[in-house]
Amino acid sequence: MADHTNIFLKKTFVAITGASRGLGRSIALQFSVNLPANSVIVLMARNSQALESVKFEVMSVAPNIKVLVRNYDQGNLENTDYFKDIFNELLLQNDISRDDFEQYIIVHNCATIGDVTKRSLELSDSTLVRKYYDINLTGMILLNTSFFQTFSDSTKSRVVVNMTSTSTYDPLASFHLYSAGKAARDMYMRVLAVEEPSLRILTFAPGASDTDMAKEVERLCMNKPFLERLKGLRADGKLTRPDTPISKLVQILEENTFENAAYVGFVNC
Amino acid sequence: MADHTNIFLKKTFVAITGASRGLGRSIALQFSVNLPANSVIVLMARNSQALESVKFEVMSVAPNIKVLVRNYDQGNLENTDYFKDIFNELLLQNDISRDDFEQYIIVHNCATIGDVTKRSLELSDSTLVRKYYDINLTGMILLNTSFFQTFSDSTKSRVVVNMTSTSTYDPLASFHLYSAGKAARDMYMRVLAVEEPSLRILTFAPGASDTDMAKEVERLCMNKPFLERLKGLRADGKLTRPDTPISKLVQILEENTFENAAYVGFVNC
Repeated sequence: MADHTNIFLKKTFVAITGASRGLGRSIALQFSVNLPANSVIVLMARNSQALESVKFEVMSVAPNIKVLVRNYDQGNLENTDYFKDIFNELLLQNDISRDDFEQYIIVHNCATIGDVTKRSLELSDSTLVRKYYDINLTGMILLNTSFFQTFSDSTKSRVVVNMTSTSTYDPLASFHLYSAGKAARDMYMRVLAVEEPSLRILTFAPGASDTDMAKEVERLCMNKPFLERLKGLRADGKLTRPDTPISKLVQILEENTFENAAYVGFVNC
Repeated sequence: MADHTNIFLKKTFVAITGASRGLGRSIALQFSVNLPANSVIVLMARNSQALESVKFEVMSVAPNIKVLVRNYDQGNLENTDYFKDIFNELLLQNDISRDDFEQYIIVHNCATIGDVTKRSLELSDSTLVRKYYDINLTGMILLNTSFFQTFSDSTKSRVVVNMTSTSTYDPLASFHLYSAGKAARDMYMRVLAVEEPSLRILTFAPGASDTDMAKEVERLCMNKPFLERLKGLRADGKLTRPDTPISKLVQILEENTFENAAYVGFVNC
């Protein structure tokens, strides 16, 4: 049962998706320096080499944290067993017992932006649209189930961080797939909160920061007014490093007073 | 360009998904008696036999409307060309010219409820979760694109009716897949409205009515308080026939003053 005290006081098993770069890397680094010794951080993403590099960084700032790397493709829906035993296997392979922890956290950070070169009425590539929701919706749901089937003890603190965006509510031209996916995740989290009141669920929008996703938008987006806004933010130095919103995320989790599954945004512009 | 007058005054080509029963059947029947002669209604669903039966009903109440039946599986994502030429082929096969119409309407009514026997944290069947969003999200987007790539003349009236539910905003235990899908469709429509201001987009929630979907919920749903509410509605005669909310839908489209892509609900309970 969550007790709403600073979550960084508990010895924790935490899994972070999209941990190889950007916001995910920053979450890994900032969580690791705040968590108690012998907590475990699992870094998950497709790029194993980049994950090893983040692991190295985490180990250098937080030598008392155990860091595991798990090659992970959230869009892997062809293999129907892909998500099933991810965390059970990780525990077994690393000789870790779930009972060693006071808390379990999953951070759903993995996301793609969709084809921002196109308008909604140009979305005719069925493989592309399907793959988008495989990665950003179905895969997230399946990983979440897998995590809580492994960490099913509802007497312990269990936390979900759903990384989102203002696109959850704010319709922007060219962000069709992204907006719809974020809105879907938001509602999934709200239903989850109703069903499982013992979970603490934070849906957090980090605002505009300088990530590879932002660069992809700047390179490809067909929404010219938004592009100008983004370029203006960069020119004005308001396109923050990922560390800035993630510091805010850490503070919110320390205070731990947020309303369950409510949208919480970090506004920097 | 939409002119916001009664949409039922224009000679129309209208496609309705999920038209074999329930709300879709009622939409077909009520639209057909309101539209001008020589309008065309396309009934789309998986069950061809049931569609033929609805076609027969429509022809008997509106003999001046041309009714086409199209066997259609919105979850068919294995065939990557499935959605591509649906409407072009229909026009060709039936020797119909798109220029014969003053207006084009698509009604996205096809929907499934998801596995309401399960809690969110029991959603571990990847095929089931993926299939849910294939049918309810990806397929809808691809059909919408296909429709407007065929009916691309933005100087004509073009209307989208997105059938939705209070689940778009109201999180209910056991409606995880359904709620998330409806929220996603809602946001897709909002982005579409921003990108294509010449479209008229109505997102309409018909409230609780006596459909096969309601019966499925009553049979299977694990959310006991909601089940009791639904049974109470039925006992009190408040679980209306589909015709009641669809009459309201017709009235809203006649008045045609709704705010584009805003959620409009019919409340009967």
